[in-house]
Amino acid sequence: MTAVRDREKVLRKLRPLFYPESVAVVGASDNPFKLGFHALAAVTSSGFSGPVYPVNPRAAGTIQGLRAYPGVSELPEGVELFVYAVPEREVAGSLREAAARGARAAVVFAGGFREVGGEGARRQEELAGIARENGIGLVGPNCIGMFNTHAPINATFASPLSFVRRGRVSLVSQSGGVGTALLCGLTEEMVGVGKFVSAGNRAALDFPDYLEYLEADPHTTVVCLFLEGVDRAREFLEKARECAASKPVLAVSSGFTGSAHRVALSHTGTAATSEAVYRGSLAQAGILRLEDTGRMVRLAKALDMFGRPPSKGVFMATHTAGPAIIISDICEREGVRLPRLSEERAARVREFLPPHAEPDNPLDMFAQAWTDTSLYLRSADIALEQEDVGCAVAVFASGLGAGPTFPAREFAELGRKHGKPVFLCLIAPMNLAGELEEAQGHGVCVVNSPEKMGHLLSDLAAYSRLRERVSRNR
Amino acid sequence: MTAVRDREKVLRKLRPLFYPESVAVVGASDNPFKLGFHALAAVTSSGFSGPVYPVNPRAAGTIQGLRAYPGVSELPEGVELFVYAVPEREVAGSLREAAARGARAAVVFAGGFREVGGEGARRQEELAGIARENGIGLVGPNCIGMFNTHAPINATFASPLSFVRRGRVSLVSQSGGVGTALLCGLTEEMVGVGKFVSAGNRAALDFPDYLEYLEADPHTTVVCLFLEGVDRAREFLEKARECAASKPVLAVSSGFTGSAHRVALSHTGTAATSEAVYRGSLAQAGILRLEDTGRMVRLAKALDMFGRPPSKGVFMATHTAGPAIIISDICEREGVRLPRLSEERAARVREFLPPHAEPDNPLDMFAQAWTDTSLYLRSADIALEQEDVGCAVAVFASGLGAGPTFPAREFAELGRKHGKPVFLCLIAPMNLAGELEEAQGHGVCVVNSPEKMGHLLSDLAAYSRLRERVSRNR
Repeated sequence: MTAVRDREKVLRKLRPLFYPESVAVVGASDNPFKLGFHALAAVTSSGFSGPVYPVNPRAAGTIQGLRAYPGVSELPEGVELFVYAVPEREVAGSLREAAARGARAAVVFAGGFREVGGEGARRQEELAGIARENGIGLVGPNCIGMFNTHAPINATFASPLSFVRRGRVSLVSQSGGVGTALLCGLTEEMVGVGKFVSAGNRAALDFPDYLEYLEADPHTTVVCLFLEGVDRAREFLEKARECAASKPVLAVSSGFTGSAHRVALSHTGTAATSEAVYRGSLAQAGILRLEDTGRMVRLAKALDMFGRPPSKGVFMATHTAGPAIIISDICEREGVRLPRLSEERAARVREFLPPHAEPDNPLDMFAQAWTDTSLYLRSADIALEQEDVGCAVAVFASGLGAGPTFPAREFAELGRKHGKPVFLCLIAPMNLAGELEEAQGHGVCVVNSPEKMGHLLSDLAAYSRLRERVSRNR
Repeated sequence: MTAVRDREKVLRKLRPLFYPESVAVVGASDNPFKLGFHALAAVTSSGFSGPVYPVNPRAAGTIQGLRAYPGVSELPEGVELFVYAVPEREVAGSLREAAARGARAAVVFAGGFREVGGEGARRQEELAGIARENGIGLVGPNCIGMFNTHAPINATFASPLSFVRRGRVSLVSQSGGVGTALLCGLTEEMVGVGKFVSAGNRAALDFPDYLEYLEADPHTTVVCLFLEGVDRAREFLEKARECAASKPVLAVSSGFTGSAHRVALSHTGTAATSEAVYRGSLAQAGILRLEDTGRMVRLAKALDMFGRPPSKGVFMATHTAGPAIIISDICEREGVRLPRLSEERAARVREFLPPHAEPDNPLDMFAQAWTDTSLYLRSADIALEQEDVGCAVAVFASGLGAGPTFPAREFAELGRKHGKPVFLCLIAPMNLAGELEEAQGHGVCVVNSPEKMGHLLSDLAAYSRLRERVSRNR
């Protein structure tokens, strides 16, 4: 009961940010060369169903067809979320007015705060104070905002983000640019997004707050982070550990070399400036650090689809040796096992293999499996019985609309029957995304190049090993 | 004069394969469940303008609307290219008949040759003998064929490959599956392909022959290879060295671990089975080995666009720090320099920077450069003057159709003015390929994630270093 009450309390705290009942856009504009034009368009294009209040002292009558308000003090009481598309000097005064009228959450896009030092740092302190004193959940400043596909609300200044696929992978990125790159990656991989936050300077809400919320959030299955530095390191690691105990938390970080920003992460009061120590701190908290945004995106996809990584070895079947060799090379290099089939199972597989094919793992069934795709189903059905096989991978060159189609629906059913994840390396260009997407829709985790598949299997294994280590040390 | 005559001789040798005047498809069919259906459709869909002769003893009248021939001996004399879509046992007999009627080139799809040992190896010897004795340029067996967008001819069994963009990057892949993956990668990166060969078992034509031809081929600017093993190692390295001296030759290879196929490459008669020795042999020949098909594809794109790698440091400008930090991290780790601007140039850049921005490299111009994209042009124009700056990189988050557009045309013009390559990391999902493609069409080399940009710059630098080493040792 306490746990449930705690969870509800946590969710309640950021509810006005992620599920606002009403939104004001300060600086809203009819001029598409102004940020406030795009900020308002983002809110209205998102399908947000509550009242939206454009605020602009220079506006007469309406903005983008909505009744405009000359100032915050003219707004009705109790507007929940304030989106600030105004210069840095104008934010604090307006936020005080908003607080007085009952604001509960705010998003501030402007830069010119802590990142510029001096006066900017003082401005940021002022914002933080107003947020703290009034219990306002404030995102930014110096960020591209946030969205939640489940509300739905798009409080960024990019209306096209309203069309990001709804899903359960949530993202918190210190950098708006990398956040956008991650959203592009998720879109390419046909993965749905839940909540997205561009955390920026983190004057008020910071990684620990977002992690606490996302841990409690029933619509988030996987949390992806992009970190450059961490301010409240001890708290960060504590919340990260709690969140990672209930759902996968993945991170990409940068800024370790030369003149690039240095990350100082502290667990015990000591600054951890080297990459190794930093990675170690994340690992202790149960967070897997990935080398590459693309790899994080694909790992998030698999973990979202299957809930947990396959804890055992991989069975792989192909009609074309080359890509399977690339995948096996990566697997072997990164410690992913491809167990041999038992003698009894090998004999059963041999029965339907073409002449000269050997019942090995990886299993090369030659071109015969391209025309008779049932060979994939028959071999995987036998291999997935085996205790030390945790998942099945099929490698298939797309018929590109003129040749055979991989039996993705049946392959996914096989996975569900055995309770083990199934993967497909479908060699096809992205402009055939229809075929990729359909296969994935059936419940097969699909990627379109052998290296992507090899790295995905490696990263799943790394995540699995990390979680085992964390559990043992508990 | 000798060089020109030699070149013409080399081109003449494989002319009937890459630019055939007439094509017979043996095993052609009206049944879409037969390979011969797809093989014939590939030829006819490619835009091939010469006569096409379907051959099938069981056909009556026409196949796919073309007059059908019951056997090779019924064909007119002098058909140049024979495409074999028949089982392995039927190839040799038919090829003898074709040779008797003047065949000059052949493509054999069937497996069941050397790769299965015993009888298969003997069958392959027989094919090789027929090809040798009759001067037939034979591709395969155990392959997916070849195409040439410049003929045009598509002698694979995948008619959709007829729509691969015409261009100047040529590919020879031992594996059909990896070859397809490379074509998918090139298509995704909007790179045009010239010649594609799935080399398969290389009973007759082998890597040395293809390298010799592609070196001479005026329509090929960059050669990409996928290797699993090499048979005629000394000859391979000799032809590779010659080819690499006139145009970039890049390679991905696999099969180095555990039970995967082992590569034996010999330069001096000693088998080179380890990855390090293998890489060393390739490097001595001036071939750069890449880790990953995606990286090879993007490097080929840049080298095709610009002819040679930038030999100096990188200037990078951004409106968003995060992605630029990821790129700098990769650059620094892989030895790519970002030189500081001279004091005089830094002062000129500072004049138009927003407040608080510093004229560093990478140059962060904050959100102001997103709305006023001329800042990219002004800063790059100054930086590209500098002697130790070899190229310019812009990092830009796409306005996704609702925000600003990067001035790619002007940026490309700047590159041409300075005679230095220009690159754009345009953060945008692939489904906005129109924007990516347009920018690239102007002459900017575009990729859509920070890691791809970092690795491209690193791989260009690695290629540049390799070529310098090779030139020094000459």
